[in-house]
Amino acid sequence: MKILVVGSVAFDNVETPFGKVQDVIGGSATFFSVAASFFAPVAVVAVVGRDFPNAELDFLRSRGVDTSGIEIAEGRTFRWTGRYHEDMNLRDTLDLQLNVFAAFKPTLPEAFRGAELCFLSNIHPGLQRGVLDQLREPRLVGADTMTHWIQDTRPELDELLRRVELLTINDEEAKLLSGERNIVVAARKILAMGPKSLLIKRGEYGVLHFSADSVFAVPAFPLEQVFDPTGAGDTFAGGFIGSLAKSGDFSARSVRRAIVYGSVMASFVVEKFSLDRLRELTSEDVERRYRQFVALTEF
Amino acid sequence: MKILVVGSVAFDNVETPFGKVQDVIGGSATFFSVAASFFAPVAVVAVVGRDFPNAELDFLRSRGVDTSGIEIAEGRTFRWTGRYHEDMNLRDTLDLQLNVFAAFKPTLPEAFRGAELCFLSNIHPGLQRGVLDQLREPRLVGADTMTHWIQDTRPELDELLRRVELLTINDEEAKLLSGERNIVVAARKILAMGPKSLLIKRGEYGVLHFSADSVFAVPAFPLEQVFDPTGAGDTFAGGFIGSLAKSGDFSARSVRRAIVYGSVMASFVVEKFSLDRLRELTSEDVERRYRQFVALTEF
Repeated sequence: MKILVVGSVAFDNVETPFGKVQDVIGGSATFFSVAASFFAPVAVVAVVGRDFPNAELDFLRSRGVDTSGIEIAEGRTFRWTGRYHEDMNLRDTLDLQLNVFAAFKPTLPEAFRGAELCFLSNIHPGLQRGVLDQLREPRLVGADTMTHWIQDTRPELDELLRRVELLTINDEEAKLLSGERNIVVAARKILAMGPKSLLIKRGEYGVLHFSADSVFAVPAFPLEQVFDPTGAGDTFAGGFIGSLAKSGDFSARSVRRAIVYGSVMASFVVEKFSLDRLRELTSEDVERRYRQFVALTEF
Repeated sequence: MKILVVGSVAFDNVETPFGKVQDVIGGSATFFSVAASFFAPVAVVAVVGRDFPNAELDFLRSRGVDTSGIEIAEGRTFRWTGRYHEDMNLRDTLDLQLNVFAAFKPTLPEAFRGAELCFLSNIHPGLQRGVLDQLREPRLVGADTMTHWIQDTRPELDELLRRVELLTINDEEAKLLSGERNIVVAARKILAMGPKSLLIKRGEYGVLHFSADSVFAVPAFPLEQVFDPTGAGDTFAGGFIGSLAKSGDFSARSVRRAIVYGSVMASFVVEKFSLDRLRELTSEDVERRYRQFVALTEF
């Protein structure tokens, strides 16, 4: 089952307590698609500038990612600069240059409109909705969002939520979206807004999944060093949707396995800067860590 | 297998976002022993003042708790006053009156010195060590501690750590004790100080268990309302040690089951003030929630 992801492909400047990198590849669609590519074919819709290196597009293609939906526009690529605190659950955005992303209006190539699995990563909910309008008959659509859209584009977000099966969000965003402090109450309220399934990402504390009749909790993999958390959420989503696409099975059991695969992929990506850990990763590594998750949690 | 617990029996004044209570029963040994009593016989060593109600000692006895080691001294009972923030992971101690506890030097009745399972709840590490010296041949000794002892009585604590099998501690205390920010590195350092087994309590995020060759993670039970977190850690320890005592089996598999039973008991105690939820609890409730933990975590 083929996956379509719409989102950003970007340059990042990142500083963590362990080091600093300039002009490395980032962006939600990038992390998502590389993670998903370990499980199933992925097509990306995004925009980059003329400054985006061909070598990186070649890398995506080497992972089986369909890059024909990545438009190369006049101008510079989206660029994010951030610094993590000693407590890496906290970060500051130091600079944000939308560049070619400012005018991004995702248009799906005809070949992509029949996608069965679509993930709308973190962009303006109006644009996310525009993608939905171009899809013929998706079996499952997931979306991500963030504080900025919850605060500033609530009507568009509300409309989107009525039309997606799955929402991924973090702890703070779930509290903000629902107006509730208790995460279980917050989850119930968000499910009432539309999504049938809600994934709450809690960083080093793992993931909670809520549906109408079930709650599933999986801890994060305890790592001796979290080197760079950038892209962990998008990588999680890529592993999760990838696993669902590979199995073609959307049952509760398969969803749980997919959440663990998402957690596996996220646990790798934070071990190095940017996509560096995923570049060298093998499917055997993925399966080994999945078994470590079993050992970590079984009783 | 009989359990011995040494710690505080106290009055609490507690304010949470949901209400306020005065002069309710608290104390580490109280929460521990009531939780453990669902699994195995428990004997308590503690001190209370003349103001301590007989009805509460009767309640402990009704749960099968041996109260013959609770000394009734001239003066008033230990009293704690605390207020929880909107974010109930945070609390302020508003008042602390040691009263009869100030002169507490635990002396074990002869009948208790053969205890096989002993838990030294959160008191001065010198006193904890004094208890150890009175035990003949315990099979397993666990201890709890807190920031205050880590900062102010480090030599005594270090000596204690060399002599206990198990330490329970929270996230922040683990970081303080080890001087490490990463919880996995912190755990390895603490295991090197003596304990063979380390339980890190993370409140609403669950528990991590570390031993030389294994890591186990269990989430907290997602509750729609956490009413009063007071005593959750002691209740966890009581359920954990209780389950081990009931099985008499200290294998890795049994330890994991015991950690889940500890989490089960903690998930109940926070649903009401003080011991109120445990007073009405049945073993069937405990088993039902254990099965809910299985459903929450299995994949």
